[in-house]
Amino acid sequence: MPDTSTPDSTGLPRIPAYEPTERTVPSRARQRASYDHETVHSILDAAYLCHLGFIRDGAPVVLPTLFGRVGERLYVHGSTGSRPMRATGAANPGLAVCLTVTHVDGLVLARSAFHHSMNYRSVVVHGTARTVTDPEERRLALDAIVDQVVPGRSQDSRPADAKELAATAVIRLDLDEVSAKIRTGGPNDDPEDLSLPYWAGVVPLTHGYAAPEPSGDLDPAVQVPDYLTAL
Amino acid sequence: MPDTSTPDSTGLPRIPAYEPTERTVPSRARQRASYDHETVHSILDAAYLCHLGFIRDGAPVVLPTLFGRVGERLYVHGSTGSRPMRATGAANPGLAVCLTVTHVDGLVLARSAFHHSMNYRSVVVHGTARTVTDPEERRLALDAIVDQVVPGRSQDSRPADAKELAATAVIRLDLDEVSAKIRTGGPNDDPEDLSLPYWAGVVPLTHGYAAPEPSGDLDPAVQVPDYLTAL
Repeated sequence: MPDTSTPDSTGLPRIPAYEPTERTVPSRARQRASYDHETVHSILDAAYLCHLGFIRDGAPVVLPTLFGRVGERLYVHGSTGSRPMRATGAANPGLAVCLTVTHVDGLVLARSAFHHSMNYRSVVVHGTARTVTDPEERRLALDAIVDQVVPGRSQDSRPADAKELAATAVIRLDLDEVSAKIRTGGPNDDPEDLSLPYWAGVVPLTHGYAAPEPSGDLDPAVQVPDYLTAL
Repeated sequence: MPDTSTPDSTGLPRIPAYEPTERTVPSRARQRASYDHETVHSILDAAYLCHLGFIRDGAPVVLPTLFGRVGERLYVHGSTGSRPMRATGAANPGLAVCLTVTHVDGLVLARSAFHHSMNYRSVVVHGTARTVTDPEERRLALDAIVDQVVPGRSQDSRPADAKELAATAVIRLDLDEVSAKIRTGGPNDDPEDLSLPYWAGVVPLTHGYAAPEPSGDLDPAVQVPDYLTAL
């Protein structure tokens, strides 16, 4: 990562950014790529689900899983018996992973089938995931994963006990080799297609939360907490 | 894949199902796994975005991309210059991939941090992706990818011309080694936690479409088509 604390030759403060690498520069649509911390963080923080890729027996595996961000670190947890967690175990030099987060914001319909597209925001992180063993960092990571889903929830639930902690593996992936990719706007039809009789534009997608459904065995005295109402 | 056309020993028709393999049997929560065609197809058909994993220079890569399903075949397209497409080129014996589709249906909040979970439906497909070269199959695949996003759209847009077809690679992945995983229902708190003063239940997630936004250069005589109103 470059030193991001000093002004550049323009005299203006540098925008903190990840150093592009051969694998974080896209092979096409490079103008959609972004490396600045703020863009990457905001896309990650709007999500709690990622798709984690790793290699098992020589073949790729992609699994959906929760994650949490703490500064320049991402955390993923899992059962100590699960495959990615075993592969990053203490006897192991870490696991090469690719962690991808995607938001789809709209369907882009062009007159031509070829120019159909999506509006989206995505982040792809490459690196080596390592098992976290420090008890304090494990606690911090588990809280971060819960709070990534529902901010504030970690402080309003029973923390993991010793047995639960022993059954839970936590892995860490540093934000170092990372890029964002963003598409916005309408279709990019070829000029000669503009008069074709097909509808063209964007269908925005909506994502929201329905009313919380209390568990059947919940004490009726327990109210819906403010952090859920705020979602 | 097993023969799915003949009755089994019960005399009842078999439910068509994919044969479980070592890598499609999850290491945990096996009761959530499903292999029947109908379940797998319905989860795939409710999506158009997948996360495609492959290996590049010995490291995993996970990219979001559109897909289309035609029977027991999945299709993905891309620029002929893009990395996964180059890797499956004619001179190549195919590319080992893992294609994953995930829907998140609800946030599951338990009294204990440990039992927090998600309600979700996912499909994971393992296999070898191969370049499609037959012109008819390529047309079918490209239509399927457009129609997976907006059913009916392929017949209401300009089909790809020769130049666009030449710039587009199509790869195919057969549904063979595949599993679905589904979680539904409320939190599974430990009995001794039920009286803790924390809210517990499910926050359902909603996904929808906002009103279509016509392109600024769209002829005002072109109405929003029925297949968009129907979304």
